[in-house]
Amino acid sequence: MAQFSIKDDHVDIVIGALQSDLTSFMDAWRPFFSRFHLIIVKDPLLKEDLKIPDGFNVDMYTKSDMDKAVGSSLTSQLFSGYSCRYYGYLVSKRKYIISIDDDCIPAKDDNGFLVDAVSQHLFNLASPATPLFFNTLYDPYRKGADFVRGYPFSLREGVPCALSCGLWLNLADLDAPTQALKPEQRNTRYVDAVLTVPTKAMMTLSGINIAFDREILGPALFPGLKLTKEGNLRWETMQDVFSGMCAKVTCDHLKIGVKTGLPYVWREERGDAIQSLKKDWEGMKLMEDAVPFFESIQLPPEAVNAEECMLEIAKLLKDKFDAEKNSVFIQAADAMIEWVKLWKKAVPASN
Amino acid sequence: MAQFSIKDDHVDIVIGALQSDLTSFMDAWRPFFSRFHLIIVKDPLLKEDLKIPDGFNVDMYTKSDMDKAVGSSLTSQLFSGYSCRYYGYLVSKRKYIISIDDDCIPAKDDNGFLVDAVSQHLFNLASPATPLFFNTLYDPYRKGADFVRGYPFSLREGVPCALSCGLWLNLADLDAPTQALKPEQRNTRYVDAVLTVPTKAMMTLSGINIAFDREILGPALFPGLKLTKEGNLRWETMQDVFSGMCAKVTCDHLKIGVKTGLPYVWREERGDAIQSLKKDWEGMKLMEDAVPFFESIQLPPEAVNAEECMLEIAKLLKDKFDAEKNSVFIQAADAMIEWVKLWKKAVPASN
Repeated sequence: MAQFSIKDDHVDIVIGALQSDLTSFMDAWRPFFSRFHLIIVKDPLLKEDLKIPDGFNVDMYTKSDMDKAVGSSLTSQLFSGYSCRYYGYLVSKRKYIISIDDDCIPAKDDNGFLVDAVSQHLFNLASPATPLFFNTLYDPYRKGADFVRGYPFSLREGVPCALSCGLWLNLADLDAPTQALKPEQRNTRYVDAVLTVPTKAMMTLSGINIAFDREILGPALFPGLKLTKEGNLRWETMQDVFSGMCAKVTCDHLKIGVKTGLPYVWREERGDAIQSLKKDWEGMKLMEDAVPFFESIQLPPEAVNAEECMLEIAKLLKDKFDAEKNSVFIQAADAMIEWVKLWKKAVPASN
Repeated sequence: MAQFSIKDDHVDIVIGALQSDLTSFMDAWRPFFSRFHLIIVKDPLLKEDLKIPDGFNVDMYTKSDMDKAVGSSLTSQLFSGYSCRYYGYLVSKRKYIISIDDDCIPAKDDNGFLVDAVSQHLFNLASPATPLFFNTLYDPYRKGADFVRGYPFSLREGVPCALSCGLWLNLADLDAPTQALKPEQRNTRYVDAVLTVPTKAMMTLSGINIAFDREILGPALFPGLKLTKEGNLRWETMQDVFSGMCAKVTCDHLKIGVKTGLPYVWREERGDAIQSLKKDWEGMKLMEDAVPFFESIQLPPEAVNAEECMLEIAKLLKDKFDAEKNSVFIQAADAMIEWVKLWKKAVPASN
């Protein structure tokens, strides 16, 4: 991985703290996190003080920081629960963000070695992506790999990669119904590959284990899609999935790449899937409307950065959906507009 | 893999014999081939008699069979070298075809077990494909796998899979220039995954290790794209890559799926890459014209099967390319028309 690299001080690792005692989480990640700057954002709904072990370079943010910066109304609207990490994306001053859920620890590969998820994410972002033609040999820039016979030479330079989506061993990111139906299912298969998701192919992003180029894509990673009866378990939320579709259409439009695959993290159990199933989980229905919408939209050529793409998507959401019947989408569109405003204030250089 | 299965007598394994002594090849594959019907097609350019070990259920075809069936002119035009296997596709009476180059033997997985490429291909074909939305958890129908959170429930049934493209350990399928530049490069990474190539994403098919549903897709797997100075090494040919693009746009149009990934085969060395580099290898230039062509075409709704799609593609090739400047494409278009004629004669039921 020598030929592509990113300097440590261009990276923020952002952790949304949904539990108060981060000791075992941080200790598990110490070999990979300790040389980086960390931003820890405490879930505004969490009452207890955070416990963070020594030996890390950390800036911590809590509800009072958010209230001061954006007001308490926006804080509760945008930064509750899993969404608290987005506050860290906003206040970061660095080019790259890595974000990992606090119920995940480093995975082991098939040889029993701990996976350095940080280095793998940074390699994914630093090396080009290939969204315009599918390479059956997976990531062609990886050591020992290349482009397959027939791959057009004019496309072998690739395009910048702005988003790296990692995967999960042990507990995969299934939805509430699937998780409840297969409570014993565990993901044990380590697939040793990274691939670029082709342009125009729709996918779900999961916010559990991701990295992105904040300068290029930051505004597209946005909080604010709330299910009416959203739970406080990952599988009861859709905020990251919806934001991921915004990010994917933005990347396709800007001709930049999204990768998926390595790195894996080991995901611990949290929550009771059967209890989740008892709720009226509207995430299922939401995607039936959201996917055709995102597949159909064409962003105008005037939208030349992520902020402008997001404002266009917000506009299209409002044109397409009914404020009463599809209030979740309309609220999300409003949140997108607020988010872009906040982003413009936070990152004046990009305007 | 229990829930999806294909009967043995619905399968033909087609081998194009480019070498006369198939003993070690067949012995290596005996555990996996012996319960199936085999079609072995001898390269018309090969002089020596074939040596085939006992214990297989084989029908063999040679130049004299081809000459009798299609005439010697079409035989040399369509069935020379690597293309001889297409004669086997044509004369097969079965629904599924598996085809593996005769310089490949079974690979071993990371646990040291021999890979049953036949069963894996048949599982890929029997289980649905998911070209309409990308599943980050790879093949959702595999045991222990599922759809990721957010995957639309309305798409979880998938669509039929008509083409399974396997991969290669040891010698990957690189083009002549890459192979010559990296003569020592070997593919050692076993990626334990199958995925559906998303609709509209262009890819290269390699004919080394494939399986397909002959009833659905047969006519789209066609010989006839010949480079002017085509060599007799896989990396000096483009016939399979070109035919693969025809197959991919046909599958996209018919809303059926193409999978890539497992099974691997172990590919032995053959040929001298440096010698190949000395040739004026036009495959490189060809793709720069072919890819934009295939990306741009839209097949008409009246084309409802692979034969009709191929005739439409042939027509579009003739409209788009110049008979003198791009003679390779025009000749390929003529070959496609001949091929569909032969197919209609061979498979009258499908008309």
